[in-house]
Amino acid sequence: MDQTPKVTIAAIARLAGVSVPTVSRVVNGRSDVSAQTRERVERLLAKHGYRRRPPSGRPSSGLIDLVFNDLDSPWAVEIIRGVEDVAHAASVGTVVSAIHRRSSSAKQWFNNMRSRGTGGVIFVTSTLEPPLQEELRRLNIPVVIVDPAGVPPQEAPTIGATNWVGALRATEYLIGLGHLRIGFIAGPPQLMCSRARLDGYRTAMAAAGLRIHDKLIYMGNFYHEAGFAGGSAMLARPEPPTAIFASSDQMALGVYEAVRQRGLRVPDDISVVGFDDLPEVRWCSPPLTTVRQPLAEMGLLAARTVLRLGRGERIESPRVELATELVIRDSAAAPPGL
Amino acid sequence: MDQTPKVTIAAIARLAGVSVPTVSRVVNGRSDVSAQTRERVERLLAKHGYRRRPPSGRPSSGLIDLVFNDLDSPWAVEIIRGVEDVAHAASVGTVVSAIHRRSSSAKQWFNNMRSRGTGGVIFVTSTLEPPLQEELRRLNIPVVIVDPAGVPPQEAPTIGATNWVGALRATEYLIGLGHLRIGFIAGPPQLMCSRARLDGYRTAMAAAGLRIHDKLIYMGNFYHEAGFAGGSAMLARPEPPTAIFASSDQMALGVYEAVRQRGLRVPDDISVVGFDDLPEVRWCSPPLTTVRQPLAEMGLLAARTVLRLGRGERIESPRVELATELVIRDSAAAPPGL
Repeated sequence: MDQTPKVTIAAIARLAGVSVPTVSRVVNGRSDVSAQTRERVERLLAKHGYRRRPPSGRPSSGLIDLVFNDLDSPWAVEIIRGVEDVAHAASVGTVVSAIHRRSSSAKQWFNNMRSRGTGGVIFVTSTLEPPLQEELRRLNIPVVIVDPAGVPPQEAPTIGATNWVGALRATEYLIGLGHLRIGFIAGPPQLMCSRARLDGYRTAMAAAGLRIHDKLIYMGNFYHEAGFAGGSAMLARPEPPTAIFASSDQMALGVYEAVRQRGLRVPDDISVVGFDDLPEVRWCSPPLTTVRQPLAEMGLLAARTVLRLGRGERIESPRVELATELVIRDSAAAPPGL
Repeated sequence: MDQTPKVTIAAIARLAGVSVPTVSRVVNGRSDVSAQTRERVERLLAKHGYRRRPPSGRPSSGLIDLVFNDLDSPWAVEIIRGVEDVAHAASVGTVVSAIHRRSSSAKQWFNNMRSRGTGGVIFVTSTLEPPLQEELRRLNIPVVIVDPAGVPPQEAPTIGATNWVGALRATEYLIGLGHLRIGFIAGPPQLMCSRARLDGYRTAMAAAGLRIHDKLIYMGNFYHEAGFAGGSAMLARPEPPTAIFASSDQMALGVYEAVRQRGLRVPDDISVVGFDDLPEVRWCSPPLTTVRQPLAEMGLLAARTVLRLGRGERIESPRVELATELVIRDSAAAPPGL
């Protein structure tokens, strides 16, 4: 690997009297460092011959890495498609890996990556343990995080989607159709994106002067089962909702199944809206109205960003959120009797 | 690239008085060459110092390539998962590429691959134009084809699934439930897998003494639209089928939508069976009974095979078909009134 710098970031940090992450931010072209600190660090980097990445063109390895926790996520192929598109155009190969949240597996990927070289690494919600993160920094390898789930802030640039606005728009849409009792099925509360979606729903309800009934909010986990359980519980209530907004497509399909098992129909008896716009939901029956996360575009942007960082360019913002969009299909209609 | 042989396969073919593909088969460890020819070719290869791949261990590049036409196929992620699993365990990175059936795109992939090196290439139904195929041979890079669609035989080892048996079993299952009028929605006739599935259906019907009505066979193309069109046409008949076997999952979901739009229900009014077992069909409503293609396992086997070829091992058979399996969920039941 020919990218090993002569001096470590830790040494520069000591000399500059700042933290290692701060030096790393400067090296990674992030803008969230004060101008004064940046200047001091840049001077030290230059003085000690800290080697930046190759100044232009494609990375010498001809590769970038795309690292998932698991490849069975319904997101995976969309993101791969976006990354591969940009990489291919830049004559760069995309190495796809799954590390299964296991440190042994991450270590193995890391060793393989180091011995063959890479022009940059895109993590999809996945993270490395601190020693490997430090090692990546030491090797001066650009890192970008694609984060549809909104995990807490990281040192590397992250790319997400506008979860709050997406949920707001979907709820407004249901209200516009005439729904007054709208159920919400939330994702896991430890993820920021779950909270953002729940807040978007609450805000839209409150802005329309609608009551938010506790029993019409079900705490789920993004998986089908939670949609089925939440949908079944709401439909069994004396005053069931006339619409359910599930904050993931998989949960929306779980609601479909709950509706079907009660002998009811979507959207005649109950409207359902999802969140994600996975490729398959246009083929479900009825086709699902949902909030589109631009997963392929997030992959595109991640690949462009990692290649730009590799050329030593500075990027504009440590976090970019791409717009979500309500995709209207056939699963929501006016409530029965309206 | 350090794998360039000193003498070309074409030269060996001339000397041996056999075709280039025959020499290539010997080099690739294929078994479909006569012992006599193999011996002659092997002797010439040795005499002229034709360099085999590295004798053991992982490829020196630390990479294998997985090449799709497009990454939007619902198959893609399953196959990636299988290949990555084996590659990861062998400390090899998986480079995923899409060539979009364009020769410029294939050429670009090829050049990138050549400059960084690869331990082997797995094509998923995709092919290269003859000059690039020849170039791959010249570079002595092992090739395996994963072929869920059954394209015509190729020189490299191929891995498929038992399409005929799968369709036979699914049809037998519907007959066992009491169905007499079973519609069939076929894939594109130019693909061998489409024909194999249609033949499996015909054979099961004939074996049960059931009449195969021409109007209950619809020539589709594996996509949702064809399932919707075929299903709609069959349901509009004076004597509609009581079950429809769609020979892809996407077409089965198209049938679901045709059933829904007529105000009918699966499986109460009509049974539906698919083919593929894409990850999402267990979440559709009702969950789809379908013939499982072992896509991840096909990816696993392809990766193992390409790594074995890379170690100079001989493989057992030029084509391997993995077993399909009927996965029974909730979309098929006894016909109404039975």
